[in-house]
Amino acid sequence: MLPPLPSHFELNLPTWLGEFANVTALASLEERMRFVVRAARRNFEEDTGGPFAAGVFEEGSGRLVALGVNRVVPTNCSSAHAEVMALSLAQRRLATFDLGASGLPAHQLVVNWRPCAMCFGAIPWSGIRSLVIAGGGPEIEELTGFDEGPIHPNWSAELERRGIVVTDGILRDEAWQVFVDFAKSGRLVYNARKG
Amino acid sequence: MLPPLPSHFELNLPTWLGEFANVTALASLEERMRFVVRAARRNFEEDTGGPFAAGVFEEGSGRLVALGVNRVVPTNCSSAHAEVMALSLAQRRLATFDLGASGLPAHQLVVNWRPCAMCFGAIPWSGIRSLVIAGGGPEIEELTGFDEGPIHPNWSAELERRGIVVTDGILRDEAWQVFVDFAKSGRLVYNARKG
Repeated sequence: MLPPLPSHFELNLPTWLGEFANVTALASLEERMRFVVRAARRNFEEDTGGPFAAGVFEEGSGRLVALGVNRVVPTNCSSAHAEVMALSLAQRRLATFDLGASGLPAHQLVVNWRPCAMCFGAIPWSGIRSLVIAGGGPEIEELTGFDEGPIHPNWSAELERRGIVVTDGILRDEAWQVFVDFAKSGRLVYNARKG
Repeated sequence: MLPPLPSHFELNLPTWLGEFANVTALASLEERMRFVVRAARRNFEEDTGGPFAAGVFEEGSGRLVALGVNRVVPTNCSSAHAEVMALSLAQRRLATFDLGASGLPAHQLVVNWRPCAMCFGAIPWSGIRSLVIAGGGPEIEELTGFDEGPIHPNWSAELERRGIVVTDGILRDEAWQVFVDFAKSGRLVYNARKG
């Protein structure tokens, strides 16, 4: 027997992430990325999810609106990627489904690697105006076995075409080192129907 | 001042959906789609979200595991599409992030239209083995103004390549009529940064 049909679900962040909450504003893209990369590393080291983190910032002031980390395994939710967590938490905080709504400052999503196919598709719905990533490319799949899914062949141009500015290559080496250390640690790489 | 950094969020279904919970199993694809189309219509008529619904069924027995509807506007979450709701609720119910895990029966996602770019990307992560849709194509954007986002040009083939069987054209006319009636009703079409 299955339990009754579910009507709600909650997704949460690990408790250690409270330590990151006293950051208020980070001026440069490098500072924002360093913050995100640190959260990504901590997330796998604490065994609270995969080595991915994402922050939503006010583009101009650098004010931190929300921070998310990958929570797929701990929350039993394959959509709980860092980007979806950060965007959903930012929308909850600002009480809007559209971070690009009139009257709001422009918002930016900072992630420690290229988005997967799902997160790529989530970005235009979210209302963010810019995406900042440390790097991209298939080498992460080769290193860790993560499947990034069927990413759109022109994903970056498709975002730009919708007015979302993409900046690649911020702290690439630092971000890459997290994946190297993750792979070395021997932790489980999950992929649906493979793990 | 912003409220403190958020650490969790909850997504829920409308209360009327409880009436759909006493369905236990639906044998044919047509029965499953009719059920989903009915939920999609009810969702916009009750003003509890957009005209989209999705069900996760056991592929063989037709047992209903979870039903989701679009909840973007009521929950202030741009990722709360019907497919993400249904998949997340099914994973919560079965206490796994992988609906294709060994030991589980094969699961099927039934949706009243082609997935958007985000939901397309969410499908391979979810572990479902088959996708059933009523129809697809750009006509829904022309009718309602919904932007489906940058869908992968070979989305269907990409799913099939990952072992996910796609069936299109189940009750297309009934599903289409929901969108026609939605458009006629003059209800708000939201799109991030347009609505």
